Amino acid sequence: MNNELIYEQPLNEKTRSYLRLEYLADQLAMHTESDQQHHCFYPLFSLAELTDRCDYRTDILKDIDKQLIVLSKWHALPHVDKKQVQHIIDQLNASKAPLQTNERIGCHLKKDRFIAALKQRFGMPGACCNFDLPQLHFWLSKDWPQRQADLRSWVENFLPILTPIKLLLDLTRSTAEFRTSEAQQGFYQGNSVQTLSLIRVKIDCSQSCYPTISGHKNRYAIHFVGFDNQKHTDNLVKFKLATCH
Amino acid sequence: MNNELIYEQPLNEKTRSYLRLEYLADQLAMHTESDQQHHCFYPLFSLAELTDRCDYRTDILKDIDKQLIVLSKWHALPHVDKKQVQHIIDQLNASKAPLQTNERIGCHLKKDRFIAALKQRFGMPGACCNFDLPQLHFWLSKDWPQRQADLRSWVENFLPILTPIKLLLDLTRSTAEFRTSEAQQGFYQGNSVQTLSLIRVKIDCSQSCYPTISGHKNRYAIHFVGFDNQKHTDNLVKFKLATCH
Repeated sequence: MNNELIYEQPLNEKTRSYLRLEYLADQLAMHTESDQQHHCFYPLFSLAELTDRCDYRTDILKDIDKQLIVLSKWHALPHVDKKQVQHIIDQLNASKAPLQTNERIGCHLKKDRFIAALKQRFGMPGACCNFDLPQLHFWLSKDWPQRQADLRSWVENFLPILTPIKLLLDLTRSTAEFRTSEAQQGFYQGNSVQTLSLIRVKIDCSQSCYPTISGHKNRYAIHFVGFDNQKHTDNLVKFKLATCH
Repeated sequence: MNNELIYEQPLNEKTRSYLRLEYLADQLAMHTESDQQHHCFYPLFSLAELTDRCDYRTDILKDIDKQLIVLSKWHALPHVDKKQVQHIIDQLNASKAPLQTNERIGCHLKKDRFIAALKQRFGMPGACCNFDLPQLHFWLSKDWPQRQADLRSWVENFLPILTPIKLLLDLTRSTAEFRTSEAQQGFYQGNSVQTLSLIRVKIDCSQSCYPTISGHKNRYAIHFVGFDNQKHTDNLVKFKLATCH
């Protein structure tokens, strides 16, 4: 068992969306690395559905500009690693152009007949049978490098939003360091003058519990739940906490 | 690329259900063999949903009895491998008792709090994030042998129907052997005096097409579709055909 796990809880809708998209990006990165058969389509279709429901580009562009202002102030400070800050500024600037297109993210994928047929059926229970989707059966028999290339080309459609989201979330994460904390009887609450956007909890698995975190802007609460009985634990739980803004 | 692929098309609802359940059983067998993270839950929840919607036990028991009559006639014939026939008879007989219980298949799984929480969220796009399901994040950090044991115990709930379905489908498949066929301009149709339940097409992938099969009882049609343009092919397609009853 891994020793320490990190749990993250977004405190606003935008961070919630970003984390969900980042999770899907990570899943797809994994699926383009190693062959996991038809499972690659689950994160791909989730991503297609989320970006179809909501156009994240305006939010992302606003956030990039906000971060660029913050970073340029940082860059002017004397004790700062100017090279590193400049590197992030460059990456953020580079990610703006791919977002400023008229075409909606993922629109090309919609026109792909193979993808469209699969997407329609994938939500149904057990609908990846070879009689439901003979084209999937055919595709899965292709050599992995061929399928890998297909998958990469599909994922590419979403990179204009996935790349900056990863950068923005990492900037959010960098606003706070983990500090040692304790939850008496499995409960902890805190507040902050500054508006928070992300709570991070790092905890050793040997305590056999996981956190459920709730909160909003300036207040948050953490309940620890024992995994074995799926109930709130009354134990003293030691963990590390980072409250990011 | 694999050389030959087999495509199967059920010609009645019952065979359709059996094939779907067999597919899920094969998926789960694969997931209990090798660690594929949270993907094991997709076939598990599909299986839970299908068996919740429909109680397959009566159908399966009827089919077992029907097959037992056929097999006992076979067993009496002089040129038959009596040992093999007796082995199948024994397996079918052994699978009857686990089906004759008052409890519905999968009912124990429903009471599992961990499973119930996951099942509720799994259908939503990107809903396996660690803030949606911290308990999944915890479970995934367990060592594979532990997760494997969990998965095996969940799958066990469904074995009373999965084991005989596999036997019954294999008996159906054994009713016909593949014979060489040709589809002029990518189309083939056939009919049978005997009621058919399953059409099987074996085809070499190098022809870059897959079959879409339709039919009912005594008639069936096969259209071959080119994978690259996802359109009906006008080529002469060579394949092997088995029509099972």
